[in-house]
Amino acid sequence: MNRDHDRSKYTLGVIQMAMEEKTENNILHALDLCEEAVREGAQVILLPELFSSPYFCQKEDVARFHYAEEINGELKTRFSAFAEKHGVAVVVSFFEKRAHGLYHNSVQVLDADGESLGIYRKMHIPDDPAYYEKFYFTPGDLGFKVFHTRFGCISPLICWDQWYPEAARIAALQGATALLYPTAIGWHPFEKDEYGARQLDAWITVQRGHAIANGVYVAASNRLGHEAEEGQDGILFWGASFICDPQGVMLALGSHDKEEVLLADIDLEDLESIRCNWPFYRDRRTDAFADLQKRFIDSSTPGTVY
Amino acid sequence: MNRDHDRSKYTLGVIQMAMEEKTENNILHALDLCEEAVREGAQVILLPELFSSPYFCQKEDVARFHYAEEINGELKTRFSAFAEKHGVAVVVSFFEKRAHGLYHNSVQVLDADGESLGIYRKMHIPDDPAYYEKFYFTPGDLGFKVFHTRFGCISPLICWDQWYPEAARIAALQGATALLYPTAIGWHPFEKDEYGARQLDAWITVQRGHAIANGVYVAASNRLGHEAEEGQDGILFWGASFICDPQGVMLALGSHDKEEVLLADIDLEDLESIRCNWPFYRDRRTDAFADLQKRFIDSSTPGTVY
Repeated sequence: MNRDHDRSKYTLGVIQMAMEEKTENNILHALDLCEEAVREGAQVILLPELFSSPYFCQKEDVARFHYAEEINGELKTRFSAFAEKHGVAVVVSFFEKRAHGLYHNSVQVLDADGESLGIYRKMHIPDDPAYYEKFYFTPGDLGFKVFHTRFGCISPLICWDQWYPEAARIAALQGATALLYPTAIGWHPFEKDEYGARQLDAWITVQRGHAIANGVYVAASNRLGHEAEEGQDGILFWGASFICDPQGVMLALGSHDKEEVLLADIDLEDLESIRCNWPFYRDRRTDAFADLQKRFIDSSTPGTVY
Repeated sequence: MNRDHDRSKYTLGVIQMAMEEKTENNILHALDLCEEAVREGAQVILLPELFSSPYFCQKEDVARFHYAEEINGELKTRFSAFAEKHGVAVVVSFFEKRAHGLYHNSVQVLDADGESLGIYRKMHIPDDPAYYEKFYFTPGDLGFKVFHTRFGCISPLICWDQWYPEAARIAALQGATALLYPTAIGWHPFEKDEYGARQLDAWITVQRGHAIANGVYVAASNRLGHEAEEGQDGILFWGASFICDPQGVMLALGSHDKEEVLLADIDLEDLESIRCNWPFYRDRRTDAFADLQKRFIDSSTPGTVY
């Protein structure tokens, strides 16, 4: 994996933050935390999902499309300037207005010279109580992507994508050394006591599983704090941003209640060593995977006729 | 998932055992442990990989093909009688002699009337120091399969398969409510102190990840104890057989040093509830998964030309 265009090691910084109503305040706050990450040595920086706004998907409300911006909008301008000034790459989540009435949940990858390497549009869109994303976001049409930043090859995937092994695998097959998940996940306050611990554990475990199965670093950048919604309980975003290595070992793990900058080295020698010791790529039965393109394989159920 | 042909709940029994040189002793011992499982309520029983012999793959030796038997061999006869007598289904791992010089690492699924529902042949064959399986086993040519036992729909997968999300997914898409992994995994004694804990943790985590991503129960049945090999260090099989639920919650976990029968209920109402609350199947981007059939996606690497 250690090809000429990749460095053998780079430092990943993951921002965990709380958001407020005012976009400008969120942007300034994110820039502050990114500066802190740079001071601590980060070369590639991951921001949480939709960090410039509250998590507006708690309600279906046409007025909330105003949070969206175009690809070459304010966030691009501000973070490109930041990336160029500090010589770091930044993965910037944004609510993308693509056309009148056509919106995506996207990230823009800005390289260390401030230039955009392109965007990724969230492929898997959830729709659960208080996460009404299918109302706001058209599923991505760009496929799963990798971006060759100055420091290394990364794949941005977004939140609900993190539950899908297919997404992680296709990113890894393209040469990603790290899967980076901007995230907005939390507890429904009324069920936290009963289900909270296992929900959190499942969320971390499935992603550590992607790291192990694919021999890649995995990072998630989550928001935190309670965001209220009139007439509803709101969501208690659980933080717990993390970075794990290609064997699933936790390198950094955020708290549930503090803003933080997490840091870890993405070390391609370690990655190579882990993959050579557990050579999963060697043995994949690609000849037997066609059924992965099916929604379900009903024919195996007795009595099913179409 | 709770269709007419499935019961809403059944009890899974997982055997963890140590093996010795003599095949007959291993069979008798396995039958004893299966009887114990039946006494404790097991309806579907999972045995470890190649339980009728030592783990002979520690060395490449033509003489060791003698451990193999045909599909309708001794193991089939003995365990069919057991299954019929007790009215339980048994997943029986065996070293399959298919033709002269053609061998597989297989399981036979015996239903509660003693009849065979068919076999599965291990699709992913490892080859690592002291696990020289590519010498002995031709990779499976039957694909990933499910079997509708009297109690429920299960998918047997074997050991190295457990690192592959594709295998778990295709089994789940066929309606499996439990993925059952006969296993032979352990530590190289010389590296256990340095790497042992994280190897074990990765092995459990990647399988819990399959449970979570697919909303299925997962069970692994491992051998335990040190098996010596002349001129080598041997392998210290780590036990730690387990059963986890569709959210990755551990229901039963074996020790590293004791033979055990693990038991847990496979509850289709729980499975349905977990899947409805986290509806991953709903949103899979099957239109974007074609690349899973590739070995690697080299075109995304700058400078790669074919």
